[in-house]
Amino acid sequence: MKYIDDTICACATSGSGAISVIRVCGPDTFAVADKVITLKSGTVSACSGYTLRFGKFHSFGNPEEEIDEVLVSIFRNPHSYTGEDSVEISCHASGYIVKSILENLVRSGARIAEPGEFTRRAFIGGKMDLAQAEAVADLIAAQSEAAHRVAVSQLKGEYSCELKRLRDKLLELTALLELELDFGDEDVEFADRTALYSLLDEALAHIDRLASSFSDGNAVKNGIPVAIVGEVNSGKSTLLNALIGEERAIVSDIPGTTRDTIEETMTIDGLLYRLIDTAGLRQTEDTIEKIGIRRAWQKLSEADVVIALLDGTVPSTESAGTLTEISSRLEPHQTLVAVTNKTDLSPALNGTLGISARTGVGIDDLKKAVAASQAGRFSQDNTLVTNLRHYEALVRAAENLRTVREGLDTSLPTDLVAEDLRAAISELNSIFGDSMSASESAASSSAASAASVIDFKAITDLIFSRFCIGK
Amino acid sequence: MKYIDDTICACATSGSGAISVIRVCGPDTFAVADKVITLKSGTVSACSGYTLRFGKFHSFGNPEEEIDEVLVSIFRNPHSYTGEDSVEISCHASGYIVKSILENLVRSGARIAEPGEFTRRAFIGGKMDLAQAEAVADLIAAQSEAAHRVAVSQLKGEYSCELKRLRDKLLELTALLELELDFGDEDVEFADRTALYSLLDEALAHIDRLASSFSDGNAVKNGIPVAIVGEVNSGKSTLLNALIGEERAIVSDIPGTTRDTIEETMTIDGLLYRLIDTAGLRQTEDTIEKIGIRRAWQKLSEADVVIALLDGTVPSTESAGTLTEISSRLEPHQTLVAVTNKTDLSPALNGTLGISARTGVGIDDLKKAVAASQAGRFSQDNTLVTNLRHYEALVRAAENLRTVREGLDTSLPTDLVAEDLRAAISELNSIFGDSMSASESAASSSAASAASVIDFKAITDLIFSRFCIGK
Repeated sequence: MKYIDDTICACATSGSGAISVIRVCGPDTFAVADKVITLKSGTVSACSGYTLRFGKFHSFGNPEEEIDEVLVSIFRNPHSYTGEDSVEISCHASGYIVKSILENLVRSGARIAEPGEFTRRAFIGGKMDLAQAEAVADLIAAQSEAAHRVAVSQLKGEYSCELKRLRDKLLELTALLELELDFGDEDVEFADRTALYSLLDEALAHIDRLASSFSDGNAVKNGIPVAIVGEVNSGKSTLLNALIGEERAIVSDIPGTTRDTIEETMTIDGLLYRLIDTAGLRQTEDTIEKIGIRRAWQKLSEADVVIALLDGTVPSTESAGTLTEISSRLEPHQTLVAVTNKTDLSPALNGTLGISARTGVGIDDLKKAVAASQAGRFSQDNTLVTNLRHYEALVRAAENLRTVREGLDTSLPTDLVAEDLRAAISELNSIFGDSMSASESAASSSAASAASVIDFKAITDLIFSRFCIGK
Repeated sequence: MKYIDDTICACATSGSGAISVIRVCGPDTFAVADKVITLKSGTVSACSGYTLRFGKFHSFGNPEEEIDEVLVSIFRNPHSYTGEDSVEISCHASGYIVKSILENLVRSGARIAEPGEFTRRAFIGGKMDLAQAEAVADLIAAQSEAAHRVAVSQLKGEYSCELKRLRDKLLELTALLELELDFGDEDVEFADRTALYSLLDEALAHIDRLASSFSDGNAVKNGIPVAIVGEVNSGKSTLLNALIGEERAIVSDIPGTTRDTIEETMTIDGLLYRLIDTAGLRQTEDTIEKIGIRRAWQKLSEADVVIALLDGTVPSTESAGTLTEISSRLEPHQTLVAVTNKTDLSPALNGTLGISARTGVGIDDLKKAVAASQAGRFSQDNTLVTNLRHYEALVRAAENLRTVREGLDTSLPTDLVAEDLRAAISELNSIFGDSMSASESAASSSAASAASVIDFKAITDLIFSRFCIGK
């Protein structure tokens, strides 16, 4: 299984915790490890896979110069993350120690890994497909339960399985078309075309359904867009802070966890929401201000949920007018949540939810109302496409299939129709990277890869370059 | 070995790497793990120590709700960091996943560890003494080869061994004194006192030597103080940047390593130097400026190395005067390195090292000159005390021994002399924490601990509170 002939190393953890973990993988892993790690008895290379050993990491060429006491995890080909021989060295989390260990691993014959190279090797080695590799990155970035669930499902390969079944249907279609080509002179066309149309429509409907799930998938991954719209001084900023502030406190509840601070998102019931700020609405003749308000309406149009924030202290007729204007601009798929702010000073407008962003009264109810508007939207049973690359491949595949259908309708020569069909298959293959690992490990400019419709090398380069070193 | 009856968990890594490691330790470790981790076959609790298993971490009470694919390291009492049953869970490095895993471990019966609690348990369980526990923190903080070497030696217990031998000498002394008490009425005093004085002087000399190593130990750990002194506009800031800048480039040479940015330190030949900025010298009658210059002289007095930076573009008589003034203020233990800057514009003063901080010419030679001044200062054979707490205990122990000597000289009653001797022993014990783990695991206000000279509980509380969570 020596698909790559060198041995790489990198630190897989970062920051200043208690321990750091350094990964080594590749064919010379154990030879490298034996040069710098001594155990109480025996050698790392003599250890069985899936065992742990306590040892001393020392300078290359000088066993007396101890760098750290380490714990070594041993993995033997093919039972490792990449499928190669591999060790993970757990050391004290010191920048100096990590640097020294990496330096000595390099002196012993390893090289520093490129970003994403471990996962790339796992892909090349057939331990995971491309969609699963992308799920690794999604999993690390997931901020909500729903986004996490989608990434876990994709990592487990459920998503790839569905796409592979779809691809297999298209292969079946190709077989039927090729039957026509073989028996071109005979009269087999009519009978086959019925089955062909049926298979084609079925596949097209499936791809369309997947492609259309991307707006939901994107909302799950990056947050459901929520616009807060209202008149000047209705308290939009205060509300934003009240919504974000509480959430922050909840997230940082458990000591010992870290998370990146992401501005203006909140999680309710396991779903991530992305809060969109808008300029305050106002009747104005000022040209500049009109532009600002036009932008607010534009942002409103991009939201899935619109919170219309009314000011309880202005005359109710005015608020009612604002609410009517906001409502009139909504599309059917958008949810309106009408809210009256400043109920600590004035009563709420009829039919609206009363809150006080300043005191926090009603904020929980508002969150519940927002969550209720999304209830049932993301069924756990339906596959969600969360990746823009996949979405674009699906859209192109659907276009190819529509061209196939047109070709059949207009009795285009079968070999031309088959070409579009192969293009659609190639698009699906690009999602999970079938046959890409083979072409990647072969010479980069091989005839096979040059002939393929899609530039596999470019796709994988792009995907793995976005990973961090050590992944 | 159930010295503590609950099970703790914490994330031992931090930041946004590829993997995170969560530690669980305590008597219920395996019961907790079985509730949230499923393996392909068998259970975590059935696994042998020092083995690794690939598994799924799921919600407590819901095995269907998978949180992450994890790698589980299994350690069985007493073969673990703390000596207790323990597992380390290696998961994808996501704040959401780490938080979910910790939440579900808590639901399964673990609690979040306090700062330093793992190492504290290792100390209580007898896996390491207090000086070794402190070495763990020093090791993580070590920024240079020398500091790292001292910490490794201390972690290995070499340092504690030396102190224990010293302590044993004092115990021998106590035995001799007690012999006197037993035979108080007979005439055994004179013979014993010869041996007593000899042992006492030997121990005192040893303790004094250790205490005096602290200035070197501190220099190794926190950096050798280097003051850059010179006239206004001689280029001190440019030199500082040239010295630090190059070093930074060297340190960040290897990708995949991280380190905390510490201002104004540099490493040469494995030793850390702490660069001290001073105000520019100038003949002035201005009162405020005079204060600044007085402070520069003060800082110069705290340095081990003084770089006198002369401006090559000013008349050489003026520079010679500055150099004479700086030299006149140096103590014998301080090293002077005389440097002429701006040699790209003017020649160097006779007997000085010519550099151009702006172009970088001569910077390497300057570093070599600084390093040469420290050559041989830190012999690897001599024990260095690097810890302020240890230094203070040694100073107090020496004081106690001097009182013992005075008592012997002035024929103080033997039981009073023995008391001072016991105080000295107690000070040494406090360094490596002998008998402290026992008193700590006993009721905190037990008679034994209340009667002891030193508050062991307060010392250990202080030491471990400075650790991070997960260590």
